[in-house]
Amino acid sequence: MSKMEEIQRICLNRGIIYPTAEIYSIMSGFFDYGPVGTLLKRKLIDYWREFFVKSEDNIFEMDGCTVLPEKVFIASGHLKSFVDPITQCKKCKSIHRADDLIQEKTGMFVEGKPVNELSKIIKEKNVKCPNCGGELSDVRLFNLMLKTEISPVGGKPAYLRPETAQNIFTSFQRLLRVARSRLPFGVAQVGRSFRNEISPRHFVVRVREFNQMEIEMFIDPKHPKCLKFDEVKDKKITVFTREAQKKKKEPITITAEEAIKKKIVPNEWMVYFLVKEFEFYKSLGIPSDALRFRHMLPEETPHYSCGNFDLEIKFDFGWKETVGNAYRTDYDLKKHMKFSKKDLTVLTDDGRKIISHVMEPSFGIERTIAGILLHCFREGKDRGWSWFAFPSKIAPYHFAIFSLVNKDGLLEKAKEIYEILKKEFDVYFDFSGSIGRRYARADEIGTFGALTIDYQTLEDSTITLRERDTMKQIRVKISELSDVLKRFLKGEKLDALGKVI
Amino acid sequence: MSKMEEIQRICLNRGIIYPTAEIYSIMSGFFDYGPVGTLLKRKLIDYWREFFVKSEDNIFEMDGCTVLPEKVFIASGHLKSFVDPITQCKKCKSIHRADDLIQEKTGMFVEGKPVNELSKIIKEKNVKCPNCGGELSDVRLFNLMLKTEISPVGGKPAYLRPETAQNIFTSFQRLLRVARSRLPFGVAQVGRSFRNEISPRHFVVRVREFNQMEIEMFIDPKHPKCLKFDEVKDKKITVFTREAQKKKKEPITITAEEAIKKKIVPNEWMVYFLVKEFEFYKSLGIPSDALRFRHMLPEETPHYSCGNFDLEIKFDFGWKETVGNAYRTDYDLKKHMKFSKKDLTVLTDDGRKIISHVMEPSFGIERTIAGILLHCFREGKDRGWSWFAFPSKIAPYHFAIFSLVNKDGLLEKAKEIYEILKKEFDVYFDFSGSIGRRYARADEIGTFGALTIDYQTLEDSTITLRERDTMKQIRVKISELSDVLKRFLKGEKLDALGKVI
Repeated sequence: MSKMEEIQRICLNRGIIYPTAEIYSIMSGFFDYGPVGTLLKRKLIDYWREFFVKSEDNIFEMDGCTVLPEKVFIASGHLKSFVDPITQCKKCKSIHRADDLIQEKTGMFVEGKPVNELSKIIKEKNVKCPNCGGELSDVRLFNLMLKTEISPVGGKPAYLRPETAQNIFTSFQRLLRVARSRLPFGVAQVGRSFRNEISPRHFVVRVREFNQMEIEMFIDPKHPKCLKFDEVKDKKITVFTREAQKKKKEPITITAEEAIKKKIVPNEWMVYFLVKEFEFYKSLGIPSDALRFRHMLPEETPHYSCGNFDLEIKFDFGWKETVGNAYRTDYDLKKHMKFSKKDLTVLTDDGRKIISHVMEPSFGIERTIAGILLHCFREGKDRGWSWFAFPSKIAPYHFAIFSLVNKDGLLEKAKEIYEILKKEFDVYFDFSGSIGRRYARADEIGTFGALTIDYQTLEDSTITLRERDTMKQIRVKISELSDVLKRFLKGEKLDALGKVI
Repeated sequence: MSKMEEIQRICLNRGIIYPTAEIYSIMSGFFDYGPVGTLLKRKLIDYWREFFVKSEDNIFEMDGCTVLPEKVFIASGHLKSFVDPITQCKKCKSIHRADDLIQEKTGMFVEGKPVNELSKIIKEKNVKCPNCGGELSDVRLFNLMLKTEISPVGGKPAYLRPETAQNIFTSFQRLLRVARSRLPFGVAQVGRSFRNEISPRHFVVRVREFNQMEIEMFIDPKHPKCLKFDEVKDKKITVFTREAQKKKKEPITITAEEAIKKKIVPNEWMVYFLVKEFEFYKSLGIPSDALRFRHMLPEETPHYSCGNFDLEIKFDFGWKETVGNAYRTDYDLKKHMKFSKKDLTVLTDDGRKIISHVMEPSFGIERTIAGILLHCFREGKDRGWSWFAFPSKIAPYHFAIFSLVNKDGLLEKAKEIYEILKKEFDVYFDFSGSIGRRYARADEIGTFGALTIDYQTLEDSTITLRERDTMKQIRVKISELSDVLKRFLKGEKLDALGKVI
């Protein structure tokens, strides 16, 4: 069993993440978050919000509808261009993404090539159905948006948004007013998006209903200076440059300042976000050698973009885009202005009437969670069970509380401590099974620490605090518990907090 | 302009809540939350979670997909029964809900009557199109679910969920395991649902894409005792009994204990939730005389239900259901067991194999927000502007921070204080326009208090704290600011915190 399969097994087993409506035939690419997964996801979002939104004074958050009218996607270009080339097996009727299949079978990179060319390659290179070896149909384009209809008769076509960004662009006038018409300002949005992926795969890495955290940073192209650039200029990021990709070299590690000076990244705002993303993912427990920014190749970059950098995480099946960073220029607002005939310009302080440029970091929540699950996973050869070494800020539970036995007043004492701690920490109480079994269960869902009430507690009012990752224990006085636990969650080591027993 | 229209005007103007993609032709029943609305909504959800989920030891939260396969809704009965009777004007082509229209025009209550009977009434009572007076078509049933298709060829029908509850039922086996197979336990879910309403109306009261907070409380019908019933037994609720509805009498106010003894409410769990809901809505600033639980009439209650109680809020257009409370018995799990052929039973401690019963409180977030906006709205005849008297726990911002003038170091001092306070409170900084204008802007979005830095601040290190609802002010020492503000948010009156100036 691969690591990711083992992780998936634990996720199913512990009700962390599992297929949606699985009691019926499984609908691939749809997953529900169970109780532990819901806590993990919520904490990730809260932490992201602290890190990327609340820490800035000019980024607001909005929350728009997921169903949008067709006109939005005519303007954005999704109706025409948000398509994948597909081919169907004439024998077994299975559907495949033509470009992926060709790349897999022939090694040719054909993303973005027209359908007749793809059909030709399939014939010439004799590409067959990977399921049954059957002959493949001509390639056609398939729009990835999920369609629906609003209103009962002569229904109006509408689509489930394939990204959260469009709500921000269509709300631009309202948001500009909230920002008192001053650039730069940013708008964040956290929410669901939908893509009718041809081949959902790799657990939650490629799914059809997913969650995004996006920011649209609106800037004046004449004044692209990022005010907080100084805070990040000496920090390092790993960039897989176009040159390195072409020449099959390694990614380079450079400071933010160097990235600007050497014109590797187009502007300060872009580098500012890249640095923050690098710090963010490292703080989630993903090592820096499993993170890189890939400068997308010209053929992968939309014509209007002034540079796209994907934050990629290393998975066991390869590197995968987790955050897309795109300098989208004035493309989106210009298109919406044209199609809506509304004025989406900004009057700058120096009297110019401009269309704002936009820098977009777009985070995939499911891919982030998959990266965290993979890189925080610890195979427990010594202790006999596996666990997730989640950092305290995203650990679904801070502490599990146990009574050594359920008699002689220990259970009551443990419950008393649980009632006190639950006001300040995310805790749960577990009194069933052996103490070893309870530690195993706590570790397996990444609980940051465990507190055990035993006979000594009744004598000297101390309880044991056990560290998940080292299994070391110390005894803590109940009177000092709240303070010690806070320091522990903040990162102080167990030996600094007491005598390891 | 009615109160609700004035509220809607402020919501548009301040970017709180506004129509989705409004730069194109408006799609009725869809609204986006702007920055202030997003904060309000999030705080409401966080508070609800504290109140209904975290305060309980046996209620977990899950987060499932909004797109669900058709089989789920065949089993749940939605595909067949989640329908509204509609009629179309033969002249202007507008669509109307037949039962609502008949009730409006004739006063007859016809909800749930078969379509041929409704068609007959329309003809006999000469009901015409309310828009143009045209003749109306025969009545037909219209399913309110939004439909879509998954996978590219021979797409599988799927639906956007019309309620969050179905994810909980289809996940029952996983959730039961998380709960260690012990009843009672509850599962909460917060998320979006979709209903293709015929006539969206009353701002966000009847919309097509909306947010719900639901709990499914699984209980053993043989042991329906609620362990925490004692905590609520003496608390009072207002119930609009079936008898009072029939005899056109007033609702009654009774204690939880009386409601059980007099068999007004079917069991302890139901009353427990009703009491908590009553407390919750009162704490959101909705007065108790604008809240009541209406016992739904037999003709409004599904056949399987052992009692439905709607929490209704009084709006300017009438009372409207905001929380549905339904004792759904074993209906849902039984249906899903039958259609999925999976074992969804529970083995109880005393060895019975049962299908769990379920008690469901289901909160509408948009209706709750509409109720809060209406009942917290204060028309500012004296001060010259209107404001929202939001309780501190849901106020989008706790404090606005101002400098009296932007010179002589006051701006810098104000920014310094802003930087300190933003670590502990939800604050924003405003330095543009007259101080009166800034108070008006802060009040209008319901900011709980305002802090002003003036010349005196530079002399004695004090700043003014202004109370939104009374406009009273005190001076607070900067060294004591954090402590004073915390007490102020917790509800201490301004005069208890300092000398009113």
